[in-house]
Amino acid sequence: MEAVRRHLLLPPAPLRPNPLSSLAEVEPSPVIIGGMVLDIHAKPSVPPHPGTTVPGMVKYISGGVARNIAECMSKLGTQPFMISVVGNDMAGDFLLKYWRSAGLRTEGILQADDVATPVVSNVFDGSGELVAGVASVEAVEIFITPSWIYRFRHHITNAPLVMLDANLPPESLKAACITAYESGVPVLFEPVSVVKSRRIAPVAEYITCTSPNEIELVAMANSLSPSLKYNFHKIEQFKEKADAVEYLFEMLSPAMFFLLEKGIKLLIVTLGPNGVFFICCKEHTNFMKDQRKKVQTDAFSRQLLEKMDGCFPLNSRVNLCGESSSRTCVFHLPAISASVISLTGAGDCLVGGVLSALCAGFDIIQSVAIGVAIAKASVESEANIPDDISAANIADDAQSVLHSAKVLWCN
Amino acid sequence: MEAVRRHLLLPPAPLRPNPLSSLAEVEPSPVIIGGMVLDIHAKPSVPPHPGTTVPGMVKYISGGVARNIAECMSKLGTQPFMISVVGNDMAGDFLLKYWRSAGLRTEGILQADDVATPVVSNVFDGSGELVAGVASVEAVEIFITPSWIYRFRHHITNAPLVMLDANLPPESLKAACITAYESGVPVLFEPVSVVKSRRIAPVAEYITCTSPNEIELVAMANSLSPSLKYNFHKIEQFKEKADAVEYLFEMLSPAMFFLLEKGIKLLIVTLGPNGVFFICCKEHTNFMKDQRKKVQTDAFSRQLLEKMDGCFPLNSRVNLCGESSSRTCVFHLPAISASVISLTGAGDCLVGGVLSALCAGFDIIQSVAIGVAIAKASVESEANIPDDISAANIADDAQSVLHSAKVLWCN
Repeated sequence: MEAVRRHLLLPPAPLRPNPLSSLAEVEPSPVIIGGMVLDIHAKPSVPPHPGTTVPGMVKYISGGVARNIAECMSKLGTQPFMISVVGNDMAGDFLLKYWRSAGLRTEGILQADDVATPVVSNVFDGSGELVAGVASVEAVEIFITPSWIYRFRHHITNAPLVMLDANLPPESLKAACITAYESGVPVLFEPVSVVKSRRIAPVAEYITCTSPNEIELVAMANSLSPSLKYNFHKIEQFKEKADAVEYLFEMLSPAMFFLLEKGIKLLIVTLGPNGVFFICCKEHTNFMKDQRKKVQTDAFSRQLLEKMDGCFPLNSRVNLCGESSSRTCVFHLPAISASVISLTGAGDCLVGGVLSALCAGFDIIQSVAIGVAIAKASVESEANIPDDISAANIADDAQSVLHSAKVLWCN
Repeated sequence: MEAVRRHLLLPPAPLRPNPLSSLAEVEPSPVIIGGMVLDIHAKPSVPPHPGTTVPGMVKYISGGVARNIAECMSKLGTQPFMISVVGNDMAGDFLLKYWRSAGLRTEGILQADDVATPVVSNVFDGSGELVAGVASVEAVEIFITPSWIYRFRHHITNAPLVMLDANLPPESLKAACITAYESGVPVLFEPVSVVKSRRIAPVAEYITCTSPNEIELVAMANSLSPSLKYNFHKIEQFKEKADAVEYLFEMLSPAMFFLLEKGIKLLIVTLGPNGVFFICCKEHTNFMKDQRKKVQTDAFSRQLLEKMDGCFPLNSRVNLCGESSSRTCVFHLPAISASVISLTGAGDCLVGGVLSALCAGFDIIQSVAIGVAIAKASVESEANIPDDISAANIADDAQSVLHSAKVLWCN
């Protein structure tokens, strides 16, 4: 009777989620909130010509930053809980297919008739340059509302961590951030693009971690800085890789430290072929809620844990990951040389790899190294998220990253 | 036992049609053979820019000449039997959705895992011009084979008429043509494009009817003419519409009469805003097998038949449609002024309208007039095939076409 009464007191559900989803006991899964997008890639086999259709190939690819991260985590053995929206249309069914085949939970993914599934339709030329592209992704802004997110507040408050992509509208970013923050759940903010990265400004105080590239980093710092403006000038040619890293650190460190001042605890700055900088802030080395209560570990994570066991080359030097640590350190992790096939999805794989490794019980330094290794696997694959990720290869690559990692600065 | 024995003697089915489809008693339905295509139309809301994706709308439209004609016929109350191919993929399911919702038979549509559903992905600019487009339609050539067509030979030999689109590979065009021809089933050849229209050459002797535009007409005539070359020069400006029609007739009649010499019995030449020419050849006024055995008449056709009853303004003058007729005549039917929304699909609606009207028992002149009226409904609709076709409006428009129709020549 009590259950019935409570049910009747709930506001009527205008859409169609599982009515019990906010009441039932929820298993702790990382929560991923943001866009699921169908990418249509058309590549002509002869030079494209305005005014006429030419023969070629058309491919459908599952995309969207949050979706890519969630798929990557699922392929690494972590079952994320996705909060998103698709239409009750061809593209929506296509995007949900992987979810269903992988046995992932779909209650958080609104599928409704009046939604047009987010889609990006691109035509490339023979050398892979974009000739013309159109994005229709407003459903993410219109339908991933605070009230849709609140339906899954128990998933958020029980999650080991929450990932938000900047495609979310500002009010939804805020709703998710505050819900997570009030329960002590770390939040990762994925900036998506230079324009959207600025959406961090009103919610920065609730964000634990963010993963910009150089340009997004500067844009985010500027969005938070009322007076001082940060700049970034890329220089393509350096005699030595080390010179480039040194230059980048000098150029970017003001913006990086400014974000730490604003409350960010972990900053992962992707530098393309130059690897990543990452900064851990003192007094905050746990990037998961209830770190000891590991989420799910499947065969993949266990294999990775076994192979990586004992590989703590940096920890011994900086003692960052002990709970007694109170230091702030900047690290540089180099990229691993790769046979590039497609760069799309690499950044999402980095984030998916980091989050999945954290959930599997790795420390933050190992987790970022594993992220770099997964990103390498992504650029060597045509798909956004590679289909066959080998735990042995990832462990090898992550260890080689850790061995060439450097501490650039520590206080 | 006899059925079992026959079944066991059949060669094993490598794909998955209904195993009884070639044996069972088949109802006489018009047979439509050719492409089913997903059209992806991307329209930016700001000017498109190479190298970057801009916001806009992306639409999925069911297309393909044969598919459009079949959908149009189905919406006019005639149930066509479609022979085609789609992949076991997102686009294939999308294209079959209409077939299933309309209760149309799908045994003739091969859906297989190794097929990529034909797709055309186009990006337009703000004024509707094509910026870049890629077509991936080779499945029609690879998979609509003579042996796939032969599986449905009983449908073909029992059909009142057969429509083939020039997307079919030459050997399949030939297989379908000969099967129909040997059973006395009239064949309509839809030329699709200037390049593909030339595929008529090896099969012209089996073709009853074809529906080219001016340029396809000339290309077809040239493909059949070893020596003389036909030409067509379009002139945009005429003081009077009548002058344009006279000029077009003078310009096109050599190619038109040449096609009649080659065995074509009915020629419908579409002239865009100038309407259509059509020529009926003497000794052939039946464009359906077993003309008296009407196929299916539903509410739509009955309403149209009622409203058009007694409207034979040309028949009384030329007595073409009586069976005793032995004349060859050229008619001009004007287009009806329309508020143009989208020109795509208009030609397919013209053909679908003509075929559907013939199946419903209209004579050839009325049928072409109904085709012109359906084409007008198509240009006034965003969709290739308009959703709501009003029998009353079609009857009104077809009557107005018939009242302004002219006999240009008769022998």
